[in-house]
Amino acid sequence: MKLSLNTATVWKQWTLAQAIDGCARHGIPGIAPWRDKLAEMGVKQAAKAIQANGLTVTGLCRGGFFTAKDWLDDNRRAIEEAHALEADCLVLVVGGLPAGSKDLGRARERIQECISKILPEARQAGVPLAIEPLHPMQAAERACINTLEQALDFCDALGDGIGVAVDAYHVWWDPKLEQQIRRAGKQRILGYHICDWLVPTRDLLNDRGMMGDGVIDLPRIRGWVEGAGYSGMQEVEIFSEHNWWKRDPDEVLRISKERYLTVT
Amino acid sequence: MKLSLNTATVWKQWTLAQAIDGCARHGIPGIAPWRDKLAEMGVKQAAKAIQANGLTVTGLCRGGFFTAKDWLDDNRRAIEEAHALEADCLVLVVGGLPAGSKDLGRARERIQECISKILPEARQAGVPLAIEPLHPMQAAERACINTLEQALDFCDALGDGIGVAVDAYHVWWDPKLEQQIRRAGKQRILGYHICDWLVPTRDLLNDRGMMGDGVIDLPRIRGWVEGAGYSGMQEVEIFSEHNWWKRDPDEVLRISKERYLTVT
Repeated sequence: MKLSLNTATVWKQWTLAQAIDGCARHGIPGIAPWRDKLAEMGVKQAAKAIQANGLTVTGLCRGGFFTAKDWLDDNRRAIEEAHALEADCLVLVVGGLPAGSKDLGRARERIQECISKILPEARQAGVPLAIEPLHPMQAAERACINTLEQALDFCDALGDGIGVAVDAYHVWWDPKLEQQIRRAGKQRILGYHICDWLVPTRDLLNDRGMMGDGVIDLPRIRGWVEGAGYSGMQEVEIFSEHNWWKRDPDEVLRISKERYLTVT
Repeated sequence: MKLSLNTATVWKQWTLAQAIDGCARHGIPGIAPWRDKLAEMGVKQAAKAIQANGLTVTGLCRGGFFTAKDWLDDNRRAIEEAHALEADCLVLVVGGLPAGSKDLGRARERIQECISKILPEARQAGVPLAIEPLHPMQAAERACINTLEQALDFCDALGDGIGVAVDAYHVWWDPKLEQQIRRAGKQRILGYHICDWLVPTRDLLNDRGMMGDGVIDLPRIRGWVEGAGYSGMQEVEIFSEHNWWKRDPDEVLRISKERYLTVT
């Protein structure tokens, strides 16, 4: 069982403490906390509970958002927290267009400059940074790194200590996906996230599906990712206003596990 | 004034006859009809009215949808209609995943096979085929050609008589946009469509914005397209359930023209 629970999947239902207990109860060996929940629980207490339950932290969500005013301090704190949790990586959602700007090219240059400022500290802390390319429909508001190829170009320019989080939901449509996963290889693939693309999709942010309920060929993408050398966990991350956030969280974990075993 | 009205912009308000009159009344020199409206009016009558008003047909929308059962006959009819209207191109929206399938790779191969079947007839009729890469958020349901690079790879494999329709709404986010527009060049760019990406966007299909109301840097993209040698019209195409489809169509044309002159 190489399944990790991204706590966004039960964001409306559970605190981080409850999610840690839930993972232990369901035999899910990995967890990826979001920082709002981590702050609520306290980093030390969370690290202790995670360790006591023998969970792997597949990633800390999230650093990045370089459009925010306090981006530097916030990313420094995120690196410290990821270090304290011994997280496999700190996931970077890089931010979209600055308010009032239409200059996507400049926004992208600036992201590279910002990452290069925090990367030395991340290396020193032993925290790999994972750029998560987000679906192009989120380019304006959340992240203007939108393909794996683009993220890997950033990595190549930045050097060691940085890689990518491959989220099937964001990249499944990409005609160059197989090629770019191969290019990324073991060294650059720091995380692999799963859920499903629903047809129809009713919201650009919070209408993700449970694995098996949509059209993503998850076994094929997992095959590519593992073929490239990734041997880590699959992290289930479902934002779902109308369905999974409304369900009994124990049911969500039970079904996630069942689907992980049958359709991924 | 190199502005063309894609009739989808006033889809809920006007028949094709009314749209032709509207273009003439507002001094808009181009029109791009959709085939449902064309069928209502009748091809001969439409061709006559378009010619009488001196309008250029910048494209016929649409052929493609190779997932449909009658795709071959339907595309043959579309080629005939485009020929009758002396359209600059027949726009291909190629279709998404076949029902029940998750095999995006096979869906894409099949599209190439289908286009290669209709291309000789299109060449003979003097109707250039324009592949329109659609935004990745429409990969499952409407078109699994999702980047300009991918569309141009198809064109290279298929030869002469085929090119692309560049719709700013679908491609504005693409980090390789400038490079691929340059690659396309005068020969492959058969149309250029404009509208805007709203923040927030509330619907994956019918929430497009009027030029200037969103975040797309339209002058920059137009510059790239013209720099590559395109000298045709800009075709305004707005699907807008909650705004533009509810307005007085004469107001829609007046504002389209004003925005064309000031923000594109």
